[in-house]
Amino acid sequence: MAGLALRVPDWLRQRAAVTPERRALVCGAQAWSFAELDRRVDAAAASLDVREGERVGIRAANSLGFVVAVQALMRRGGVLVPINTRLTDAEVAWQVEDAQVSRVVGDDDLEALLRQPTPAHQTRARDFELHAWHSIVYTSGTTGRPKGAILTYGNHWWSAVASALNLGLLADDTWLACLPLFHVGGLAILLRGVIYGMAVVVQSRFEAAEVNRAIDEQGVTIVSVVSTMLERMLAERGPRAYPPSLRCVLLGGGPAPLPLLERAAAAGVPVVQTYGLTETASQVVTLAPEDALRKLGSAGKPLMGSEIRVGSDGEIEVRGPSVSPGYVNHPPRDGWLHTGDLGRLDDDGYLYVLDRRDDLIVSGGENVYPAEVEAALLAHPAVSEAGVIGVPDAEWGRRVTAVVVVRAGVTATADELIAFCRQRLAAYKAPRHIEFRSALPRNGAGKLLRRELRIER
Amino acid sequence: MAGLALRVPDWLRQRAAVTPERRALVCGAQAWSFAELDRRVDAAAASLDVREGERVGIRAANSLGFVVAVQALMRRGGVLVPINTRLTDAEVAWQVEDAQVSRVVGDDDLEALLRQPTPAHQTRARDFELHAWHSIVYTSGTTGRPKGAILTYGNHWWSAVASALNLGLLADDTWLACLPLFHVGGLAILLRGVIYGMAVVVQSRFEAAEVNRAIDEQGVTIVSVVSTMLERMLAERGPRAYPPSLRCVLLGGGPAPLPLLERAAAAGVPVVQTYGLTETASQVVTLAPEDALRKLGSAGKPLMGSEIRVGSDGEIEVRGPSVSPGYVNHPPRDGWLHTGDLGRLDDDGYLYVLDRRDDLIVSGGENVYPAEVEAALLAHPAVSEAGVIGVPDAEWGRRVTAVVVVRAGVTATADELIAFCRQRLAAYKAPRHIEFRSALPRNGAGKLLRRELRIER
Repeated sequence: MAGLALRVPDWLRQRAAVTPERRALVCGAQAWSFAELDRRVDAAAASLDVREGERVGIRAANSLGFVVAVQALMRRGGVLVPINTRLTDAEVAWQVEDAQVSRVVGDDDLEALLRQPTPAHQTRARDFELHAWHSIVYTSGTTGRPKGAILTYGNHWWSAVASALNLGLLADDTWLACLPLFHVGGLAILLRGVIYGMAVVVQSRFEAAEVNRAIDEQGVTIVSVVSTMLERMLAERGPRAYPPSLRCVLLGGGPAPLPLLERAAAAGVPVVQTYGLTETASQVVTLAPEDALRKLGSAGKPLMGSEIRVGSDGEIEVRGPSVSPGYVNHPPRDGWLHTGDLGRLDDDGYLYVLDRRDDLIVSGGENVYPAEVEAALLAHPAVSEAGVIGVPDAEWGRRVTAVVVVRAGVTATADELIAFCRQRLAAYKAPRHIEFRSALPRNGAGKLLRRELRIER
Repeated sequence: MAGLALRVPDWLRQRAAVTPERRALVCGAQAWSFAELDRRVDAAAASLDVREGERVGIRAANSLGFVVAVQALMRRGGVLVPINTRLTDAEVAWQVEDAQVSRVVGDDDLEALLRQPTPAHQTRARDFELHAWHSIVYTSGTTGRPKGAILTYGNHWWSAVASALNLGLLADDTWLACLPLFHVGGLAILLRGVIYGMAVVVQSRFEAAEVNRAIDEQGVTIVSVVSTMLERMLAERGPRAYPPSLRCVLLGGGPAPLPLLERAAAAGVPVVQTYGLTETASQVVTLAPEDALRKLGSAGKPLMGSEIRVGSDGEIEVRGPSVSPGYVNHPPRDGWLHTGDLGRLDDDGYLYVLDRRDDLIVSGGENVYPAEVEAALLAHPAVSEAGVIGVPDAEWGRRVTAVVVVRAGVTATADELIAFCRQRLAAYKAPRHIEFRSALPRNGAGKLLRRELRIER
C-alpha cells in the first residue's frame, strides 16, 4: 500500500536478485556486477557495529570504499552524514556535534572495509522504510552556519524515479559520478544506480581528460557536471565530437553562462540543464531533452510529482515528494520549501534561475543579479572565469564589482571589459571596478563562492 | 515528504505542462498530444457532476471516450469502477450494488463526453493523494462472487514506475492497448501513458491483423497480450519478421504454453513473460529482458519494491506497494496477498506459475496442474486450444479430462492425443478422455475459463 509507513526491500539486494550479472560499478580498473557489489556490501555491513538510526560520518574522497560504505550503512540502518573533505577540522567538529555523529569514517577505514571477508551466506537484508532518514547532508550554505538537511529513503527514491521519467532509462545506461560523493549531486547517482539497475562509473575526482576518456571508453551515457567542469571538458576535448552513446550532460550547480551553453550546443553536446538543491535530494527542475535547444538557458519544468512557484519577492519555492522534511535540530518544515534562490517563470512556465537571493546586489534601488553580469563577462573571449559581488558604497548602497580570470596568453584591461559589459547590459548592471586573479574560490562541487571574493582596493 | 498522505500533482496535467507536444493518444484516425488530451479531459470533467469519492461505473468498449472518462474521473476525484462488457445485466446490477456505484456510463455517454466544449481557460487540477482510492476493479474470480479490488493512486503509480524500472523507458516508446480497458491490464497502460509521457495506441478490440498493422505503421514498441492473442498474431503474421522497433511483447494472463514461447523465440519476437493480478494493479513479477530466452517459461522476479514467496501449500504470495489494500465490503488486508495461484521458485529464485489453485486436480492423491497438461496438448501440431479439468470419479477422486480445439483442415483422434501426452507426461497426468470443440470459453482478457468447461459424457 502506498502511504503510511511504506516499506520496500533493500534496493541493492533486489537488484542483485533480479539483475545479478549486470555491471553495477566501475572505479579505476575495478568493475563489479550487482551480485559482486552485494557481496562486498554484505561483508562490510557484517563488520560494521552500527545501530539502527546511528549517525555515521564519511569524510573521504570518491572511491569503491565510499560506495560500499553508503550501501552498508543502508543495510544496517545507519544514517549517512557525508562530510565535505575541504572543511577544516573545526568545521567538521561543528557538524559532528550538530548531527550527533557517533563516528567519522575516513579514507583508510574505507580501504579496510573492502578487505572484509565475504560471508559464506547472504545475510537477510533489512527493508527500507520510505519515511526513515537515509542521510543528513549539510548544505554548502553561503551565509551563516551550514544546516543539515534530512533526506529520507523516500526523498531519494522519488528523486531517482522522477529523473528516469524525464530522461528515460536505456538498457545500457551508465552514469558517470565525477562530482564528489559527499555532495547530494554525487550521492544521488549511487542511489539511481541500484534503483535503476544501472552501471555507475565513479572517478576519484574531477579531471577533464579522465571524464572525456570515460565517455569514449567506458560507455558513459550520462554525466552530471557543473558549468566549470563542462567548460574544462570542452577545452580539453578540442574539436573532436563526443560519441553518440553520450546522451545527456546533466548540468547543475547554478545558473549556466549562456555562451557556454551556446558553445556546447554548437558542438552537439547534449546538455540538459537542471536546478536542484541538497534539500530536494538533487535535481527537481530539469529541461525535457526535447527542449534542450529551444529553451536554452532555462532549467526547465518540475520533475513528475514536484511543483515550483516564484513568490512575489522573486524567490523560487519547491514542493514535492523529494523535498527534505526539514533540517536536523530545526522544526520540521511543511508545505513549500523556500530555496533562497531567485528565479522567473517564462510565459510557458519554464524556470530561469537568476541567482542566490543572498547574493543579490541592490545598487541605486535597482536589482542586479551577479550571475547575469558574470554571464556578460564570460561572453568576452579573454575571460575564463568571473565572479561579481556588491561592495558597500556610500552613494549607491552597493557598487557592482567583478573579479575575473583571464585565459592564458591573452590580455584584457578593466576598461575594455567594462565597456564590453555596457554594450550588453543596462549601465547600472555593468561593473564599476574589475580585479584580475589567477583563480576564483569554489566549493567541492565547483560552485562559485561569491562570499569568499574579497576585493582589494 | 514520502510517507503520510503524500499528494502529487495531476499526472496528465503535469505532462501537459512538461511535454505538451508529445503524442499522447492514438485511436483509429485520431492522434492527440498531451495538451490536446488535457483540454478534452478538462472539457469532460467540467461537464461531469461527480462528487469526490463518488463511484462511477464505465461499461463500454475501448474508445477515446473511455480514456477521456478515466482521466476526467481522476480530475474530479471520482472512483472508477470499470465493468466487463460481457457481463449480464444481473451481474452488473450485483457489482453496482456491491460497489455503491451512483451511475453507469455507457458507450453513448462516452461519445457525448467528447462533444463537450473546451473551456476557455485551463481549470485548476486537483492533486492526487496516493492513498486515495483510484478504482474498484472486480476480479474475474473463477469461484464464488467476484470481489471488487480497491486500487489506490499509489498502487497504480508504483506499478507504472516499477514496470519502467524493469523494461526501461525510451523516448519513442508507444504502448498498444488491445486488451479491454475494463481489465486492469488495459487500464494500467493508460496510467503508464500519463506517468511516463508516453504515447498509447488504443484499439477498440483485439484483432490480430490490426495489432500487426499498428506494430508496422504506428511505431508500437510495447504491446500487452495474453497467450491466445500472441498465438493469433503469429498465425496472422506468417513468416514476416516484426520490425526492430517492437521491443517488448508483454505476455500475461496465466501460464503460457512452452511451444508458443519457443515458436515466438525462434521467430525473434521479443516476448517478456509476466505475472500479475487485478489486486496488484497489473504485472508484479516480470522477466528482465536479458532473461527472456534463458528462463523461457518463467514469469521472472518481482518488480522493484515488491516481494513474492511460495507458501508450503504451493500458493504464490505477494507483498509490495502496488498491492491493493483490500476488497470493497471486506476487511482491509495487511501483509501478504494470497493469490490463489500455484507456483514454484527455481534455485535462482525465478517464479514459474503453475496454475490456479482452484483448478488444481487431485487424482489418485497426485496433484495435476491443468496448465501443464494443456501445454502438452498444445505441443501437438493439430491442437490450437486446450482446456483441462478434473471430472468427479468414484475411483480416483478426479479424472483428468481435456477439451480441445483442432486447427482448421487437420484431424486428430482422442487416442492419438492421449498417446502423445503419455510420451511427455507421467501417466497420471495424461487425460483419460478428450472432447473436441470449435472454441473454448474465455473471459474478456482471453483467459481460459476452466469452470465453464462442461464435459458431456
